[in-house]
Formats: sequence, structure tokens, C-alpha cells
Amino acid sequence: MKKSILVVGLGLIGGSLAIGLDGFEDYEIIGCDVSQPTLRFAAEHGICHRLTERPGDVLPQVDMTLLCLHPQGILDFMAEHAGQFRPGSLVTDVCGIKTAIMEGASVLPEGVDFIGGHPMAGTEFSGIEHAFGAMFQGAHYLITPRETSTPEHIDLLRRMAEHIGFRDFISTTTAQHDAMIAYTSQMMHIIALSVCDDEGLFTCKGFEGNSFRDCTRVAALDVPLWTQLFSLNAPALDAVLDKLERNLAAYRKVLQSGDRQALADKLAFSAARKRQMNLE
Amino acid sequence: MKKSILVVGLGLIGGSLAIGLDGFEDYEIIGCDVSQPTLRFAAEHGICHRLTERPGDVLPQVDMTLLCLHPQGILDFMAEHAGQFRPGSLVTDVCGIKTAIMEGASVLPEGVDFIGGHPMAGTEFSGIEHAFGAMFQGAHYLITPRETSTPEHIDLLRRMAEHIGFRDFISTTTAQHDAMIAYTSQMMHIIALSVCDDEGLFTCKGFEGNSFRDCTRVAALDVPLWTQLFSLNAPALDAVLDKLERNLAAYRKVLQSGDRQALADKLAFSAARKRQMNLE
Repeated sequence: MKKSILVVGLGLIGGSLAIGLDGFEDYEIIGCDVSQPTLRFAAEHGICHRLTERPGDVLPQVDMTLLCLHPQGILDFMAEHAGQFRPGSLVTDVCGIKTAIMEGASVLPEGVDFIGGHPMAGTEFSGIEHAFGAMFQGAHYLITPRETSTPEHIDLLRRMAEHIGFRDFISTTTAQHDAMIAYTSQMMHIIALSVCDDEGLFTCKGFEGNSFRDCTRVAALDVPLWTQLFSLNAPALDAVLDKLERNLAAYRKVLQSGDRQALADKLAFSAARKRQMNLE
Repeated sequence: MKKSILVVGLGLIGGSLAIGLDGFEDYEIIGCDVSQPTLRFAAEHGICHRLTERPGDVLPQVDMTLLCLHPQGILDFMAEHAGQFRPGSLVTDVCGIKTAIMEGASVLPEGVDFIGGHPMAGTEFSGIEHAFGAMFQGAHYLITPRETSTPEHIDLLRRMAEHIGFRDFISTTTAQHDAMIAYTSQMMHIIALSVCDDEGLFTCKGFEGNSFRDCTRVAALDVPLWTQLFSLNAPALDAVLDKLERNLAAYRKVLQSGDRQALADKLAFSAARKRQMNLE
């Protein structure tokens, strides 16, 4: 029987992964969504080999299920369909935080493997109409396997990531993942949102350069998705925001002091860190 | 006699403007720098029609002098060469803050016009070897004229900005300029630096996505330049950082509360502002 991968949720990420999966070994790519317009769009644009709105019909056959729903949707789907996944098959996801998802995956029956996944890409848009296969070029693919996850399943994800065009494939723990993501991703979003809360936002048109556009781009985010992502990782996010506050306050202090040499020293310190990071 | 523009300082900005000025009406573009390697690079790459290391030789003839030095360098150059500028000629600059520069321009003799200029572009690099003419495509060109600046000189700058490829040409006051730039540019740099001061910077490799790369890009800044820019605009910068601190604290508060609906409402508010700004 032909091997198959079921992509559940054909939004921006699921749609882009489905496009990128085209031609992956001899896998049949099956797409599933609850939205008729999304399924129609996928059919019209040749996204997936087969489409369905009834996951229960195909879950017992597929070799891998790729859950591309919002965080709560991933948890709900696993709970609702727990008994339908094929024993020996792999279930994975794309959620930007991992601890809550790995805990939720405990509802899966023994024999169904779960490996957390986080394809680190996206845009400020959502929906299949914004999906594109090149989204993951140069991006990191992070996984959080269980202790019992099989080498065969990890290798399958590695080959899939390579086919789609990810830059690398990194295995980590849920705690490490969520702490790092709080800093590298979630905090960037809180910064962008906070900058946009300034009452000068609308009067600054004409005075904004690339640094402003780059920093605030992600503020136009998907509200329900990010409400869940932030809430599920609130302690780690709060910890990095606390550090940011202290680092900003240190800059304010030296600016207020009027001590140019101290400011130059501080700028040299931070800029050298950034240059060092660029080299590594 | 052929009309001419003198570009003083062929670094990243001066070099890029000189490249962009090639072919501007029938102006001869003269480049001036104190660095022999910079002059050699300019000569080898055909940047400027003529090069000199002695500005005093050409200042009495040129129609426009474009000062592309660091802020203190611009102030020093005007003071040192005040008597050499041709009466009726225009002097302008590229400094990212304007109040201190406009004040410094009072050393120029009556009859020499000064219009502050701020071509809002740049990269995290410096030096003529990183200069490129397309740097200003789509960027804003801001000017702060004196009350006595002539319409002819403003129009000359407008035509120059158009030739180089700027998106638009905006005339404003020094106070308005410096307050806006504190928000749209200087604060973005302080944020990037503060993010890089986090001790997690070097361990987060592999976990960073585009939002992190975009936000921190400008942290690798030119330290002497930005020491001057921040220092010359410290009160305005401190005021916007104070507002940022309060906006970040408001996000922390709602995250800590665990109230998902309040978080969703707050995210919707900020994201809608960003979307609205994108539309305007």
C-alpha cells in the first residue's frame, strides 16, 4: 500500500508544508480541513494529492499525521481522535510552544508515536491563500521527541525537513525549546505590539525607516493564535521580558547621565555581541 | 561655468549619495574625503567625477555642499570652513538628528543657505566599500529648512531626491523631526541593543526566526556615530523609552493575570493599530 502523510489544517503553515511536501519520496499527501473554501482553494491550486473533510476516514491508514492547527486545536484533535490513529504511526505538530502539546499528546494510545515539531517560519498573514512552499527555505526545524520515539520516525522527519528546504534540523527538550522561543520569538512580538501602542504611531508616517518596519512587522498578528501561544508559555515569556526591562533601563540610565564615554562603552559592548552572534 | 555639488565624506551614506547623484542634471559631482584608501576606492569605482582631499580648494566654487560626516564632524566642518562657502550656495547634511545641526549652522555667513537633510536609509555597515546607489529606493528624504531658505534651494533638493530614487520628500521642523526620529529610529536601535544584552544571546542559535533577525539587525551599529546621535537627542529618546517601558509593563501585567480574554482584547487592539498603519 502507498505510504501517506495527512496534513490536518490547511492554513498558512499547513498549506505551505503541504506545498513543500509535494514530491517527498513516494508519499501520498492528504489534506484535511473543516473549511469548504479552504478545501476548494487547495483543490484549485493542486495542493495535496487528495483532500478530505473527514479525518476519521483516513487516520487509520496514514503513516504520519501532521497537525497544523492552533494550539488548542491540536490538543482537541488528539483527544477527539485518539483511538483512530494507526498503531505504529507518527503524529507530529507545528505548534510554537511544546510543553503543553507534549503533555496533551499523552492521550494518544500506546504504540502511536508523538514527536513535537516546530517549523520556525511564518508571516504576519494567515490562511491558505498566503501559503507558499518557499516559506521554510533557510528556516530551522525544531523537534522535541519523546524518550520512546523511534529513530525511524526521527529520521522520517529529518528527510521531510530536508525535502521541504529547511536549513537545519534540531532536536531539543520541551523546556529548552519553550525558554528559547520566549526570547527569540515571543518577546519580539510583545516588543512589536508595545511599540505600536505608542500614541505616536499614526503621526510618524513619513519618518519611519527599515528598522521601524522590521521591528513592528510582526505586530499584525493572528490574535487567537498568539493569545494561546503567549498564555501557554506565560512564565518563560515573563522572565525574558523582565530581563529586557532591566536592559532597557540600563540604557536609559546611561543616556540620562550624559556620560558619553559610558554610553560609547555600553554601545560597543552590545554591538560587539551582535557582531559576534552574526559570525557564529 | 559648470554647476557642481561637493560631497564631503565618502562613507556609507556619502558614497551611496555620490553614486546616486551620477547623471543628476548637468551637475559635476566632486567627492572629498580625508582618507586615502577611501579616495582610491572612489577613483577605482568611478564614484564622483572629481576627487579631492582639500575641500578649501573647491568650496568657493561649488553650488551645493553635502556634508556626509558624523554629527560632530558636520559641526566642526562648518565652523572650520565657514568663510570658504560660496555666497548664494546651499549647504546641507545627512545627520539623523537636526536641532543641534541647525544650531551649529548659525556659524555660516549670511548669504550661505543651510537646509537640514535626513536621507532615511542606511545599513548596519559603514565605509564606501558598502555604499550602493539603490540604498535610497523607497526611502523618505526629510528636510528642515530655515525660515530664510530659498524656494530654489528647496526645489534643488527635491529634484536631487527624485533623481536618487527617494520615495518622497518631506519638509518638517527640527523639533518635530527629532521627536519622531527618537521613536521611529533611535528607539529601534536601543531595543535591538537591549535584546542583544540578554545572556541568552549566544545559546539561542538555532532557535531564531525572522522576527529575531529583523529586530536585532541594527544592533551591530557604528558606535562613535550612534554615541553622538543618541547623546544629541537624549531627552526625546528618554521620553519615548519611558512610554515603551509602560507599554511593555502593561503587556506583562495582563500576561501575569492569566486572563486570556483580556490578553486577546489587548492583542486585538495593538494588532489593529499596526494593520491600520500599514493601510495608511
